[in-house]
Amino acid sequence: MTMHERVVDGDNPLLEWAMPNLIYLDAVSAVPPRPETIAAMHPYLTDAWGNPLSPHLAGDRPKEAVERARGQVAALVGAAPAEVIFTASGSEANNLAIKGLAATAAARHRRHLIVSAVEHPSVTASCRALEAQGFTTTVLPVDSTGRVDPSRLQSELTAWTAIVSIQAASSEIGTLQSIAELGSLTRRAGVPFHVDAVAAAGRIPLDMASLQADAMSLSSNQLGGPSGVGALIVRRGIRLEPLIHGGTQERGRRAGLENVPGIVGMGVAAELTRAELSSMASRVEPLMARLRDGLLMTLDGCQMTGHPTERLPGHLSLVVEFVEGEALVMALSRDGIAAAAGVTCRERTAWRASPALLALGFEQALAQGAVVFSLWRGNTQEEVDRAVPLIAQHVAHLRALSPIYAARVR
Amino acid sequence: MTMHERVVDGDNPLLEWAMPNLIYLDAVSAVPPRPETIAAMHPYLTDAWGNPLSPHLAGDRPKEAVERARGQVAALVGAAPAEVIFTASGSEANNLAIKGLAATAAARHRRHLIVSAVEHPSVTASCRALEAQGFTTTVLPVDSTGRVDPSRLQSELTAWTAIVSIQAASSEIGTLQSIAELGSLTRRAGVPFHVDAVAAAGRIPLDMASLQADAMSLSSNQLGGPSGVGALIVRRGIRLEPLIHGGTQERGRRAGLENVPGIVGMGVAAELTRAELSSMASRVEPLMARLRDGLLMTLDGCQMTGHPTERLPGHLSLVVEFVEGEALVMALSRDGIAAAAGVTCRERTAWRASPALLALGFEQALAQGAVVFSLWRGNTQEEVDRAVPLIAQHVAHLRALSPIYAARVR
Repeated sequence: MTMHERVVDGDNPLLEWAMPNLIYLDAVSAVPPRPETIAAMHPYLTDAWGNPLSPHLAGDRPKEAVERARGQVAALVGAAPAEVIFTASGSEANNLAIKGLAATAAARHRRHLIVSAVEHPSVTASCRALEAQGFTTTVLPVDSTGRVDPSRLQSELTAWTAIVSIQAASSEIGTLQSIAELGSLTRRAGVPFHVDAVAAAGRIPLDMASLQADAMSLSSNQLGGPSGVGALIVRRGIRLEPLIHGGTQERGRRAGLENVPGIVGMGVAAELTRAELSSMASRVEPLMARLRDGLLMTLDGCQMTGHPTERLPGHLSLVVEFVEGEALVMALSRDGIAAAAGVTCRERTAWRASPALLALGFEQALAQGAVVFSLWRGNTQEEVDRAVPLIAQHVAHLRALSPIYAARVR
Repeated sequence: MTMHERVVDGDNPLLEWAMPNLIYLDAVSAVPPRPETIAAMHPYLTDAWGNPLSPHLAGDRPKEAVERARGQVAALVGAAPAEVIFTASGSEANNLAIKGLAATAAARHRRHLIVSAVEHPSVTASCRALEAQGFTTTVLPVDSTGRVDPSRLQSELTAWTAIVSIQAASSEIGTLQSIAELGSLTRRAGVPFHVDAVAAAGRIPLDMASLQADAMSLSSNQLGGPSGVGALIVRRGIRLEPLIHGGTQERGRRAGLENVPGIVGMGVAAELTRAELSSMASRVEPLMARLRDGLLMTLDGCQMTGHPTERLPGHLSLVVEFVEGEALVMALSRDGIAAAAGVTCRERTAWRASPALLALGFEQALAQGAVVFSLWRGNTQEEVDRAVPLIAQHVAHLRALSPIYAARVR
């Protein structure tokens, strides 16, 4: 059954043009695109399709468009346009930051990486790849709310530390880190500080300077732009080795013919995001509170994960006892509700507990019951009110099928 | 002045919707997009924008679409769908092939790379990056037509050779290499063989099996698809280390949320390309011959570069004495003609002689006069007939401004 064949009563005006009747509560996996970004991309798919490096008129408009988008993305995080390196994804930005900064540091005999225990797979896998080249990684533990203790970072910084990489917010548990404090400690130690802001950008304000970040990863999609584009912002004066060598694009820091339409879309998405950032929390927080309270009142054997207050607006992460998170997500899908089962960059078939939840101290079995409801600017109260009883029904149904639940309850 | 403000009489029906009045003779820099690819992308920008990894209905259509495109791209080169790794560009595909295969080979103590002297910057720069990690590179010389001598490859293959990477065709000089013969030698030596087919794909037939290629790079744009997408085809059983680590996308070989609309566009472009491949040469070759003969008859001090017959259809590469190639390209642009000044992945300001032309034996000064006219399926005889006298006029004009030319002629 495709999305268009589904008939469920609903009236979300912002989704009507995209996926009618879908109650979309999975913004951490993909944010529905802003119509303005698609409109802005169109001319660069049809008319101005040239190569920005071409020294003739077919290159002029694409080149101007990429530079305009560079300014729009820079402005979102208080950076200069020349500090923006466009990539194909937030994952590529994380890889470029960690491997690119590590290569520069290795030339100065610094081969020690520091990350937190709740980082995105693209961060942890980049560290593993560097370990094969002789780097060592310190994984900072987190408390039961998912927060890194700055004094612990302080004690792990050495004269050989190449890079510290900490996410601004977790897409999985919602927890915000004290980035400004961690950044200050890292800068005082003279170590480059990378912030994975993919989940945070568009949801909370981010300023490179006040966070003392040297590099910051962003994803277009999380701003309501197209998928297939991201950016790494690198503070002026910070040198990094490219991941993709070759042409002179992106000032020699990332070779390859640019995704011009995608970059244009990301630029417009960044500009719109910036304009509405101050109202974002007040828009989604009451709905999230309603969803949270509704579910916690209806469901037993269910607890929130992550920090209770220092968390992404519109983000509700839970573990539900005696339920597989992915089974719940698939069951909800049949009723037109989209949610995520914890970390999003994983195959559908890879049912296993999230490393982040284990780091928070959850037991394996409980961690497998992770489910994340993440709101976007288009959600409505009516959607939340429809979703709560459906979610409760599906949890009850799945538990009724579970032999373990039956044994425990008996 | 933007392209739309230009008024030059012309009537190319295929370009009318895109860049009216432009005589586009620069297909190696960017091929005008096929309207069908843009139409196919549209639903994946607007409706089916979900994350293909999402185990709910918003992920279903994007996931199906990516897999359909994988089959379409595979079919173009006689590969299996599972052998396709989508990337963001041909340059990324080249980097992934060379660095990814080199990392696997290094584990077996093979640290010797073999490439030709006429490779794309993304190949040569990848080798330089590996040299910093202890690899050595043998650069195979080419003859004055730009061809690699297979017996020379044979003599350079060692028990420590990690990879051989040779382009199928040069975008700069048009020369085709004897890929099947080079592939056969390489396979007999038990070395992985990578073919940069970015410039060749869509212009000549390519079959992974008969070329004995283990990996092949493609760019969507060169097939008439959107920019910002490419693919590396890797033969089953060949292992390579990812360039972008993290999520499980592309079977763990390239992490990051996919550029779903771009991938869909590349798939459709590959399918259309395959359908018209047999008629491609007969369509553009007569026009190229007309352009070549017109220019060679009109211009003195001008010679073709590359191989006279073993070359890309529709590709004319020249060096023009006493003219800077980029100055000529910019001058032509003012009359609505788009051409390239040799290699395309270079900043507008980087006026220097092409390494490939120097490898062919051209002197520095002459090599700086490189200009490439490359046709696409939409060009017309009327365009060629309008272009020839304009090109001749601009060459004469630039020479009249050249003090060196004045000194020589005097």
